Amino acid sequence: MRKYRLMAPGPTPVPEKVLLKMADTIIHHRTPQFQAVLTGVNEKIKKVFKTQNPVFIFASSGTGAMEASVVNLLSKGDKALIIQGGKFGERFGEICRAYGVLTVNYDVVWGEAARADVVKDLLKENSDIKAVFSTLCETSTGVKNDIKEIAKVVKETSAVLVVDAISGLSADELKTDEWGVDVVVCGSQKGFMLPPGLAFLSLSEKAKKLIERSDLPKYYFDLKAALKSYAKNDTPWTPAVSLIMGLDSVLDMMLEEGMDNVLLRHARLAEATRGGIENMGLELFAKSPSNAVTAVKVPEGANGSAFVKKMRDEQRITVAGGQGALKGKIFRLAHLGYMDEFDTISALSATSIVLKQLGCNIEPGKAVAKAEEMFSR
Amino acid sequence: MRKYRLMAPGPTPVPEKVLLKMADTIIHHRTPQFQAVLTGVNEKIKKVFKTQNPVFIFASSGTGAMEASVVNLLSKGDKALIIQGGKFGERFGEICRAYGVLTVNYDVVWGEAARADVVKDLLKENSDIKAVFSTLCETSTGVKNDIKEIAKVVKETSAVLVVDAISGLSADELKTDEWGVDVVVCGSQKGFMLPPGLAFLSLSEKAKKLIERSDLPKYYFDLKAALKSYAKNDTPWTPAVSLIMGLDSVLDMMLEEGMDNVLLRHARLAEATRGGIENMGLELFAKSPSNAVTAVKVPEGANGSAFVKKMRDEQRITVAGGQGALKGKIFRLAHLGYMDEFDTISALSATSIVLKQLGCNIEPGKAVAKAEEMFSR
Repeated sequence: MRKYRLMAPGPTPVPEKVLLKMADTIIHHRTPQFQAVLTGVNEKIKKVFKTQNPVFIFASSGTGAMEASVVNLLSKGDKALIIQGGKFGERFGEICRAYGVLTVNYDVVWGEAARADVVKDLLKENSDIKAVFSTLCETSTGVKNDIKEIAKVVKETSAVLVVDAISGLSADELKTDEWGVDVVVCGSQKGFMLPPGLAFLSLSEKAKKLIERSDLPKYYFDLKAALKSYAKNDTPWTPAVSLIMGLDSVLDMMLEEGMDNVLLRHARLAEATRGGIENMGLELFAKSPSNAVTAVKVPEGANGSAFVKKMRDEQRITVAGGQGALKGKIFRLAHLGYMDEFDTISALSATSIVLKQLGCNIEPGKAVAKAEEMFSR
Repeated sequence: MRKYRLMAPGPTPVPEKVLLKMADTIIHHRTPQFQAVLTGVNEKIKKVFKTQNPVFIFASSGTGAMEASVVNLLSKGDKALIIQGGKFGERFGEICRAYGVLTVNYDVVWGEAARADVVKDLLKENSDIKAVFSTLCETSTGVKNDIKEIAKVVKETSAVLVVDAISGLSADELKTDEWGVDVVVCGSQKGFMLPPGLAFLSLSEKAKKLIERSDLPKYYFDLKAALKSYAKNDTPWTPAVSLIMGLDSVLDMMLEEGMDNVLLRHARLAEATRGGIENMGLELFAKSPSNAVTAVKVPEGANGSAFVKKMRDEQRITVAGGQGALKGKIFRLAHLGYMDEFDTISALSATSIVLKQLGCNIEPGKAVAKAEEMFSR
């Protein structure tokens, strides 16, 4: 017997009581009972998004909400600035090009954060840019972008700022309204502690105006239809009822803990992970690390794929390897969602054991020692 | 205490053991464990669809798969024939027009089935039609279309036939390959006995060829990406893990019962419902009724909305009212998915009680008497 531990940056573990809530009798979505749930969910989720604006819920994975942000705000031939420093930043560009939107790319070195002054210059050079797309946490590199500074720059222009906070929300600070982020896109299987299958999108007044003029084709992800239904606490298409029941439950958990405490918990686990990793002699990959996931350079001589495989097959822990150009070069430990201090201790301990087995020069207990020290403060 | 009974044509009840299966620990989707599940699911679902071709699984509601059928098979300015005799047939037309596809409409009188000879004439008059869209069961009217005959006609042309079998599959016969249906679209919350959140799409070789030339923009629902992932038993985007675990479980249930028996059970429940309804003096709405849902004309003098409301609030039974032009004029009793004889008995009994309360001239027990007679044969 060895328990299964999910420590990839999504899907993340789902609390047992939420699993059971979703296992309750399915009710119809067009009933006063479900409408009451949805009304509550619509209000509570705004607090997590730190916005007064509507947050739409789609039955889709996060990529669907990314597509919704492109096809509802832009028109054919519009120009968009894509801040890309990893696989998920690039995805925004792919979606734009699939719909005939012209893209100006800001290629950030993988592992580094985007710089607001570069964004400013690019917006000056391309005054016709209609939207800027960025990630909060770039899951593929573990980098947190400084959305606050980027938002300051975008706010000065007529462009809107769209942020993929799919893996970042609730781990990294994101003050949607205060900072002036127009659209925040998220998914259920990360900080929200739910299974995959729901995607979320918040919409500012500035962004809402773009919807009227957008001529890109859409149907399932049409925000005009979503807005109309939202006003009646309804959804245009059949919602994923059981997942929304779970959402109701996790929103209560998050708001009971308090969003500040949720962020502090993630910060604490992330710092201990980074401290432990460095204390065992390994190197962090991200210059500006996210509190959702820690990317670690695979030590010289070790095999990155073998590490992920041994963690999975022998320790029953799912961690993530590197994607794209980073394949085999980094591994990623998530401390995201339903996670506490002993999950972090376990992750560090397993990393220490497996790297030693792979022949790395690791002193047993060093990683956990540092984490314990930090946790006992 | 009164139990909740879900008797609308979707969502439908979910078996308890499936609810518990979905409440098991969430595993990562890029693991050998999940891949083994998906490999099994991909094979088993073909048997339910009666096809040798791939069946793609989307994290979306059924409308998403309807959109996928349009945006992957057609190009801007292409012509499509829309067989519409209800709300869901019309939806295909809406999606086509949203993407710049020209639509030729075959307006079937609501409550009647589409005629294959009319389809034939329309295809002759419009030899440039690239795709024909139809429903198997038109959920809004309870009509079953004769897909076998329609397929015969379409097969003679270069057009492909797309069938929305969202509410019909597993209740009404659909021999996808044998009849030559190119694309079948379905959803999880109907005959599949799952919560909403998954959509399915089967793809023939003839339809696959259209994907290559299609120039409509798409990303989330891109079948080229889906095909590439499918070959590796993977999905392009994060799949709805818990729902797919449930899918694995319901597919086992359906194949254990045997698809022929599943169809016979639905036929038996539908016939008893129709028999009971007529025996209490009510009139059926659909001329060619589906075995998924029975549409009943609201009797003269009764208030259709009051009936649905009393069923819901006093009997705790969700049935469906009429949609669009049929609002208040019909109600719909589903016998779809996880349903047996005593669910039908309960539905008929509650209908009898509530209509009598609403002042209709109903003789208690008449509806159930007929059903009992049919069930005891």
